[in-house]
Amino acid sequence: MNDKDIKMVNQEEPVVPRTHSEKEGITNRLKRIEGQVRGLQKMIDEDRYCVDVLVQISAVKAALDKVGYQMLERHAKMCVTNAVKEGNGEEYMDELMKVINQYSK
Amino acid sequence: MNDKDIKMVNQEEPVVPRTHSEKEGITNRLKRIEGQVRGLQKMIDEDRYCVDVLVQISAVKAALDKVGYQMLERHAKMCVTNAVKEGNGEEYMDELMKVINQYSK
Amino acid sequence: MNDKDIKMVNQEEPVVPRTHSEKEGITNRLKRIEGQVRGLQKMIDEDRYCVDVLVQISAVKAALDKVGYQMLERHAKMCVTNAVKEGNGEEYMDELMKVINQYSK
Amino acid sequence: MNDKDIKMVNQEEPVVPRTHSEKEGITNRLKRIEGQVRGLQKMIDEDRYCVDVLVQISAVKAALDKVGYQMLERHAKMCVTNAVKEGNGEEYMDELMKVINQYSK
Repeated sequence: MNDKDIKMVNQEEPVVPRTHSEKEGITNRLKRIEGQVRGLQKMIDEDRYCVDVLVQISAVKAALDKVGYQMLERHAKMCVTNAVKEGNGEEYMDELMKVINQYSK
Repeated sequence: MNDKDIKMVNQEEPVVPRTHSEKEGITNRLKRIEGQVRGLQKMIDEDRYCVDVLVQISAVKAALDKVGYQMLERHAKMCVTNAVKEGNGEEYMDELMKVINQYSK
Repeated sequence: MNDKDIKMVNQEEPVVPRTHSEKEGITNRLKRIEGQVRGLQKMIDEDRYCVDVLVQISAVKAALDKVGYQMLERHAKMCVTNAVKEGNGEEYMDELMKVINQYSK
Repeated sequence: MNDKDIKMVNQEEPVVPRTHSEKEGITNRLKRIEGQVRGLQKMIDEDRYCVDVLVQISAVKAALDKVGYQMLERHAKMCVTNAVKEGNGEEYMDELMKVINQYSK
């Protein structure tokens, strides 16, 4: 789970900048996820049945997976593809494979 | 991901009530996760590199998995075990298996 | 992945013996999986496209997951439930949780 | 799990052919996996304890994951990278993302 183990390129921002609308879309998803996590705290506060809480945790994980996959796909199709075209794709592709390996765990 | 597909017992609260200390432990973990999700929003706001964001999403998922597994284990060892001992364990065990199947997806 | 890290009870056979029909069912599934793995070798031998092979590997994994889940469910509902009823369920439940944790990785 | 849902390019063989040594490496791994699956059948035949079988199924899945990841990585770094360089990378990258999404399920 260590940043340093996965990141391989000296890159601080996306290779292809996120548009305003892309940033808004991701932020809205993350805000909904934040609300779901607060909902989980409320369920614990209200002594809700374990399985109800577990089903909800599973829903939050699915939402995180969705936003993660969306970002991964955009990164591969835009940033990595661009880097390959400009002839320095090797380390971006290596890094992409490390991220994917991390996610499959 | 539907509550109704998984929940099988007519139970509103844990079979064995959570202690104050157990509730506090879970709530603290969930608050940290909420903070991590806000951190993700900040990363998007600051145009951080895709892989940095993805590594962080992976960390949030791992934290959720941990709190979920902790609750699942407690539910199995306390609630389900109790129900089995009192002779009505069958539907609790069925339900537990459904939860586990859901989590493995 | 170490047997010794997960197994907690001194048990050589299922607590509730598998019926002839149960054994036959599992064996048939495993034989099909063995055939699928041989099919993968043939695909490599025939220089088949990577994605075709990967889709097939994914199918074998799904088949293994299915037979694993079927055995896990039967173990929980029969062996673990029996042990709990006879008053020595604690270590069987501990062990079940370890198996589940292993599978979710 | 449908081939047609994932495969997007009209490709029958790897874009970059597998060397003899690569084919041998993959085939050896798959033969070992085939042996493990036969070992599972023997365990059922010998009425081995459920958890022993489950630990072994988990080992086979890990071995399949390893060979799958190895092929995925090779496909991305060689076939997809090549296609991107030659200007027809888009559908190969789309397809790669579909495979990855399939594997993460």
